[in-house]
Amino acid sequence: MQFNLNTDQLAYQDAARTFAERELAPYASEWDAKKIFPRETIGKAAKMGFCGIYTGEDVGGLGFSRLDATIIFEELAAACPSTTAYLTIHNMVAWMIHEYGGPAIRREFCPKLSSGELLGSYCLTEPGAGSDAASLKTTAVKKNNRYVINGTKAFISGAGESDLLVVMARTGDATAAGITAFVVPAKTKGITFGENEKKLGWNTQPTRFVFFENVEVEEEHILGKPGEGFKIALKALDGGRINIGICSVGAAQGALNQAQKYMHQREQFGKPLTSFQSLQFKIADMATELVASRQMVRLAAFKLDEKDEHAGIYCAMSKRLATDMCFGICNEAIQILGGYGCTQDFPVERLMRDARVHQVVEGTNEIMKLVISRKILETDSSKHIR
Amino acid sequence: MQFNLNTDQLAYQDAARTFAERELAPYASEWDAKKIFPRETIGKAAKMGFCGIYTGEDVGGLGFSRLDATIIFEELAAACPSTTAYLTIHNMVAWMIHEYGGPAIRREFCPKLSSGELLGSYCLTEPGAGSDAASLKTTAVKKNNRYVINGTKAFISGAGESDLLVVMARTGDATAAGITAFVVPAKTKGITFGENEKKLGWNTQPTRFVFFENVEVEEEHILGKPGEGFKIALKALDGGRINIGICSVGAAQGALNQAQKYMHQREQFGKPLTSFQSLQFKIADMATELVASRQMVRLAAFKLDEKDEHAGIYCAMSKRLATDMCFGICNEAIQILGGYGCTQDFPVERLMRDARVHQVVEGTNEIMKLVISRKILETDSSKHIR
Amino acid sequence: MQFNLNTDQLAYQDAARTFAERELAPYASEWDAKKIFPRETIGKAAKMGFCGIYTGEDVGGLGFSRLDATIIFEELAAACPSTTAYLTIHNMVAWMIHEYGGPAIRREFCPKLSSGELLGSYCLTEPGAGSDAASLKTTAVKKNNRYVINGTKAFISGAGESDLLVVMARTGDATAAGITAFVVPAKTKGITFGENEKKLGWNTQPTRFVFFENVEVEEEHILGKPGEGFKIALKALDGGRINIGICSVGAAQGALNQAQKYMHQREQFGKPLTSFQSLQFKIADMATELVASRQMVRLAAFKLDEKDEHAGIYCAMSKRLATDMCFGICNEAIQILGGYGCTQDFPVERLMRDARVHQVVEGTNEIMKLVISRKILETDSSKHIR
Amino acid sequence: MQFNLNTDQLAYQDAARTFAERELAPYASEWDAKKIFPRETIGKAAKMGFCGIYTGEDVGGLGFSRLDATIIFEELAAACPSTTAYLTIHNMVAWMIHEYGGPAIRREFCPKLSSGELLGSYCLTEPGAGSDAASLKTTAVKKNNRYVINGTKAFISGAGESDLLVVMARTGDATAAGITAFVVPAKTKGITFGENEKKLGWNTQPTRFVFFENVEVEEEHILGKPGEGFKIALKALDGGRINIGICSVGAAQGALNQAQKYMHQREQFGKPLTSFQSLQFKIADMATELVASRQMVRLAAFKLDEKDEHAGIYCAMSKRLATDMCFGICNEAIQILGGYGCTQDFPVERLMRDARVHQVVEGTNEIMKLVISRKILETDSSKHIR
Repeated sequence: MQFNLNTDQLAYQDAARTFAERELAPYASEWDAKKIFPRETIGKAAKMGFCGIYTGEDVGGLGFSRLDATIIFEELAAACPSTTAYLTIHNMVAWMIHEYGGPAIRREFCPKLSSGELLGSYCLTEPGAGSDAASLKTTAVKKNNRYVINGTKAFISGAGESDLLVVMARTGDATAAGITAFVVPAKTKGITFGENEKKLGWNTQPTRFVFFENVEVEEEHILGKPGEGFKIALKALDGGRINIGICSVGAAQGALNQAQKYMHQREQFGKPLTSFQSLQFKIADMATELVASRQMVRLAAFKLDEKDEHAGIYCAMSKRLATDMCFGICNEAIQILGGYGCTQDFPVERLMRDARVHQVVEGTNEIMKLVISRKILETDSSKHIR
Repeated sequence: MQFNLNTDQLAYQDAARTFAERELAPYASEWDAKKIFPRETIGKAAKMGFCGIYTGEDVGGLGFSRLDATIIFEELAAACPSTTAYLTIHNMVAWMIHEYGGPAIRREFCPKLSSGELLGSYCLTEPGAGSDAASLKTTAVKKNNRYVINGTKAFISGAGESDLLVVMARTGDATAAGITAFVVPAKTKGITFGENEKKLGWNTQPTRFVFFENVEVEEEHILGKPGEGFKIALKALDGGRINIGICSVGAAQGALNQAQKYMHQREQFGKPLTSFQSLQFKIADMATELVASRQMVRLAAFKLDEKDEHAGIYCAMSKRLATDMCFGICNEAIQILGGYGCTQDFPVERLMRDARVHQVVEGTNEIMKLVISRKILETDSSKHIR
Repeated sequence: MQFNLNTDQLAYQDAARTFAERELAPYASEWDAKKIFPRETIGKAAKMGFCGIYTGEDVGGLGFSRLDATIIFEELAAACPSTTAYLTIHNMVAWMIHEYGGPAIRREFCPKLSSGELLGSYCLTEPGAGSDAASLKTTAVKKNNRYVINGTKAFISGAGESDLLVVMARTGDATAAGITAFVVPAKTKGITFGENEKKLGWNTQPTRFVFFENVEVEEEHILGKPGEGFKIALKALDGGRINIGICSVGAAQGALNQAQKYMHQREQFGKPLTSFQSLQFKIADMATELVASRQMVRLAAFKLDEKDEHAGIYCAMSKRLATDMCFGICNEAIQILGGYGCTQDFPVERLMRDARVHQVVEGTNEIMKLVISRKILETDSSKHIR
Repeated sequence: MQFNLNTDQLAYQDAARTFAERELAPYASEWDAKKIFPRETIGKAAKMGFCGIYTGEDVGGLGFSRLDATIIFEELAAACPSTTAYLTIHNMVAWMIHEYGGPAIRREFCPKLSSGELLGSYCLTEPGAGSDAASLKTTAVKKNNRYVINGTKAFISGAGESDLLVVMARTGDATAAGITAFVVPAKTKGITFGENEKKLGWNTQPTRFVFFENVEVEEEHILGKPGEGFKIALKALDGGRINIGICSVGAAQGALNQAQKYMHQREQFGKPLTSFQSLQFKIADMATELVASRQMVRLAAFKLDEKDEHAGIYCAMSKRLATDMCFGICNEAIQILGGYGCTQDFPVERLMRDARVHQVVEGTNEIMKLVISRKILETDSSKHIR
C-alpha cells in the first residue's frame, strides 16, 4: 500500500489550490448570495483542464484517474463547493459521452466539453422518481431513425445554462432495463426550463425542471445501446458519488481552516480561543473526521480506477461517510465562530449549506445505505469488502 | 407532579396556533427570503397580548407565567421561529423594564411595549465581548444627572426597527459589578446603526451593530441600581434561554409536521414513504427528542416561575438540550424531504437555518455547558439538580 | 403544571436513598461478580414496601402511583440497577395479579408478593418470540377445568429463584387474541429451569429458560379472560418500560456521582480533573441528559397514572430515550475514570453493563421506535403527542 | 496511491485468519470468563512469527512493516481482542529493545522475545501518572555501574506472567527529560506484583500493579541513553496506538460478522432480520465505519513506516477514530442480537467489553485529542496533515 501523493499529484493539487484561491474564494460568497452561475470562471477552469479531467486526451481531456480528479476537486471545493459540484457533474457528463458515445458523438461533443465551450447537465431525476430513479416516466419513442422524448426532469443542475443534456428516458418496459440514455442539445426544439429553484445551498448553480415536449433526437445520440441507460446511469453515479464526497471533504477543509484561523484571532476571557480545551478537542475531532473522510473517498476512487468488482460499494460508503461527517465539520465550524459564524461575512455558513445538499444528491444517504447493506448482507461479504 | 396543560393554557395554546397558521405561516418564507421585518404582524400579535406576555396586567401585559409564555411561543415558532425569537426578545425587554425600571419608566414604556406601539432591543453583546459578556467596553459616564454612553454593540436583534434599547454599559470598574443597565430610546441623538447583517437564519429580524457616540440618557433610565446591570442581564438571559429553547421546540414541531405530511404524500418504489422502516424509526426518534426538549423547557420555565434557587441551571440545560436536539430534528426533516427539503418551496430548510442560530444566541451552547458544569461539579449538586 | 416532588415523595425518596446506600451499595459489586441473587435484601426491601409499591393497600401494597414508584426505583437503581430491575419486574407481576386476577387469586397471592414472601417472574419471551412476542408458541390446552401448559420461555428474570410465574400461553388461534395469561406457581409439576445465563449485566438476578411440560394450572389462575393475555402483557409492559427507564436513570445518576467525585480526587498535570474544560463539558452534558431522561420517565408515568389514552406512546418514548441516554452517561463515566473506570474497583463499569441490558429488555429500543412511529405517522398525531 | 494488499500481505492475512479461527476463536470466551492467560497459545502464535512481527530478522523477528503487522493483528483480534492486544504490547516491547537496546541486550533478549520464550510488559503508567505519564515518580538511582529502581507501576498488562519489563524511571529532574528506559527481568529481586485487576474487558491478560523495591539493574539495560526514556516511550506509543486501533478494527469485524450471520438465522414477524430496513441500515453504517477505521489505521501505519515527520498525529487520529467507531460497532452488534447479544453464548458482548478498554489504554482518547489539536492549531497544519 502507498498513501502518498506522487509528484504529479502534488503539482496539480498545488495548481488547483492556487486557482481556487484566486478565482473562486474571492467571489464565491457573492455568487451564492446573488445566485450567479460563474460561467466565465468555469471557462478559466476549463483552461486548466478541469472540464475534462478524466476524459481521454484524444478528445481534449486530461486523461487523469478518478483519484487524481478527487485531488483537484477537493482544492476547488474548499473555496466553493457549489461551483465545484457543478463542475463534477459536467465532468461526469463528459465522461459518459466519452465512455459510451459513438465515435461521431464523441468527436462532436467531447472536445467542446473539455474546453468548456459546451457545458453539460445530467437528467435522471424526475418529480416522482428520486430515490427510485428506475421508475422514471419520461419516454423516448422511436420514430424512423429518431426518438421523440416526452416528460419532465427535476432538480437538474446547470439546467438553463448548460448546452448538452444526458437524458434517461424509457424506450422499453417499465423496468430498469427499459431505460435508454440520450445526448440532447439543450436548445433542441421542445425543451423548456422551469424556474431556478430557490435552495438552501448550491446557489452558484441553477437547478431547474426540464420539460421535454416532443423533443426529437437522432438515434446516434444514444449512449451505449438502447436499454442500457440505467446501467450507464448507475456507473456514472458511482463516480458522481465520489465527486460529491470529495466536494464535502473540500468544504470541510475550508471550514476547518476558517475555524483554526478564527481561534487564533479571537480572544474571550482574556485568552485566544486556541487555549480553550473544549474547542481544542472540537478541532481535533473535526480534523480526524476530515482525514478519515478523505481517505474513504480516495479508497473508493482507487477501486473505481481499478475497475474493482465492488467499487460501487466503496463509492456508496465514501459518499455516505464523507458527506455526513463533513457536514458535521462545517456545522461545528459555525459553532466555533459563534455569532460571526451565522453571518455571511465568513464562508462557514455557506460551506455548511452547500455540504447539506450533498447528503441528499447523487443518491440520498439512505439510498447509499440500501446499496451498502445489500452487499454486506451477502454471506461472504467480509471477504470482499474490507 | 402534574404534566397536563390546564384549560386556560389549552385555550391560549389554541389561540396562538390559530394566529400562527393565519398570520405567520403563509408569509414566513417570503419574509425570510426578502429579509422583511413584519412589523405589522407583530402589531397583530400585540393585540393578542403577545408583546407583554409576562409583564404585569397593571401595565398592559398579560401577567402570565414563563411557563404559559412557552406554550404561546412554541405555537408561533412552529410557523416562524425567526419572528417569534424576536418577539421573545421584545418580551424580555418589556419584562426587564417592568421588573427593574423605576415607576416613571415603567409607566412610560411598559404599556406601549405591551401594545406593540414600541418595540424593544437588548444591547449586551459587543464585537469583542460575546461569550465573555462581562468584558464589555461600552462606557456610561456620569455628567450631572445624566449619563453619556459611548461604545459599540454587535448583533443586536431588531436594531434599526426597534424603538427602545436596553443597553449594558460600564459605569464602574472592569468587573461585572461595574456594569449598569440603561433604557435608551433608539432615536436618541448619537445613536447610529450598522448594515443589516446577512445571516444564515433569523432573516425576518434585522441584526445590526449599534453605535453610541456621546449618547445622553437620564439617570432615571437606569434599571435597578448602578452596578446591577450584569446581574440583571443574566436574570434576563435565564428567561431568554427558555425562550430560545422553546423557539427551537416550535421549529422542530413544525419540521416534524412537514416531514410526517410529506411521508404520506410521497411514494417511492411503489409505496408511500410512511412504509419504509428507516424513515419510521427516524420519525420516532424525532418525535421522542421533541417531547424531551419540550419537557426540559417547561421544567426550566417552572423553576424560573418558582424562583427556584437553581433555576438558572435548568434554563441553561434546557437551552442546550432543546436547541441541539431540535436543530437535529429540523435537519432530519430535510433529509426526509430529500431534494424537495433543500428547496425553499418547503419550510423545513428555513426552520433548520433558524434553529441553527439558536445554538449560538443568548449564550452559546458552550457557555451553557460552562454554567451547568460549574454547578454540577459542586459536591452536593445531586441534592439540588435532579 | 407542577414539577416538584411533594412532601411525601421527598420522604420516601429519602428513605429509598438511605436503603440503597446501606443495603445495596456496599454489596452490589460482589453480587454482580459472584452472580448472587440477594433474596434476603429483597426481603428487607419488602419491609419498606418496595415489593408492592403500586399494588393496593387492601392486599398489603403501598397503593402508590407509578410516578411515586419511579422515585423509589431511581434511588435503588443508583446503587444496583440489576437488583432494582428485578424488583420492578416483581412489582409488575404483583400489579398484574392485583389488577387482573380473580378475587381468590388476589387474596392468595398479592399479600405474599407485597411482603416479599413470594417473588414473581414474568414469562412472555420465548426462544423464537422476542420482539415479535405475539408469535409465542407455548400452548395452554383446556382439559376439564384446568389448563395444560407446554412450551419454553426464554430469558426469564428471576427464574429458578422466584415463586410465582405469570405465563403467557396460547389458548386460541395464532393471533395476539389467542393468548391467555396464567398465574403458575414455580414449583408446579412439570416446570424445569435452564442454566443461569451468563450475561453482560443484570448479574444479580438469574436469567433462565423455563420449560413447561404438561404443567397443569387451574382455570381460576387465568388473569383477565381467556384471549386477553396479550393485551394484559402489553399493559404490563407499559409500566415495565417506565420501570426500566427509571432504572437507567438511577444507574446514570450513580455513574455521574462517581465521576464527579473522582474528578475532585484525581489530579493530572498538577490540577484536579475538575479544572479540565473538556471534562467539565462532558459532565455538563451527562447531567443535562440525565435530567431530560428523568423528566421523560416522569411524564410517561404521569400519563399512565392518568390512564391517558396515549400513555403507551409516552412509555415507549421514555424507555427509548432514557435507556439510550443513560447508557451513554454510564459509558462516559468510565471514560472520566480512565483505567480505573475499567476496573471493578469502581462501580461505573457495572452500571454501564447493567444499563446496556436495558436497551434490549422489555421491548428492544427498536420495538419502541415501531410503537412510537405508528402513532406519530397518524395524521393528527401532533394534537395528541406533545 | 495504492490501496490493495500485495500477494505477501494476502498470504499472511490468510495465515493469521486461519490461526485465529483455529487457535483463538474456540477458546476466547472461556479465557475471558475464567481470566485465563493463554500462554501456550501465545507460544503457537510465536511459531507463526507473531511475537516479533516488526523486530529484525537478524534477531529472529519477521522484519515486517507496521502496516503488515496491522493486517495480522486485525485477523487475530477478530477472534480475541484481549489476547491480541497483549500480543501487540509484547511486540512493542520486543521492538523497543530491538531499536534502542545495546548490542548485548538485543542479542540476549530479542531472539527469545521473538520465539515467545520470553514475554514482555511495558511499565509506564503509575497510580498517579496516567494521562500525565511524564509526571511518573518511580526512581532509578545510579549506584556504581548499576541503577536501583524504586516505585510502583499500575495497570501493567501481562504483569505476573511476563518475563521482561521495560520500565520508565526517573534518573534526572522532574521533567520528561529526566526519564530513562530500562529492561528489567521480571524475576529480579525486589519486584513484586499486585492482585490481578478485576476488569470490564481484557480478561485474557493479567493486569497488575508492579512494585519495585530496591531493584538493581545493570547500566547496559538502559534503552537509548539516560534521559531518553520518555522520548522512547512516546515513540513506542505511536506504534502502540496503531496496534490498539487495529485491535478495535478486528473486534468490530468480528462483531459485524456475528451480526450479519445472526440476521440470516433469526426470524421475527415471519421474516429473517435481514429483511428489516432499520437493521439493514444499521449494518450498512457499521460496515462503512469499519472500513473507515481500517483505512485510518493503515494510513497511520504507513506514515510510521515512512518515518513521516507527522506520523504521531496520524497514529493519534487513527487510535481515536478506530477505537471510538469500533466500540460503537460492537455495541450495535449487541443490539442486533438483542437478548442473545447480552449473553456470553455469543461473542459480541465480549468484543464490546474488550473494545471499550481500547478507548482508555495507550493514551486515553482525550489525550489523543490533545495531541491532535496541538498540531492542528499550528497555522500551517493544513499543509502537513491532510
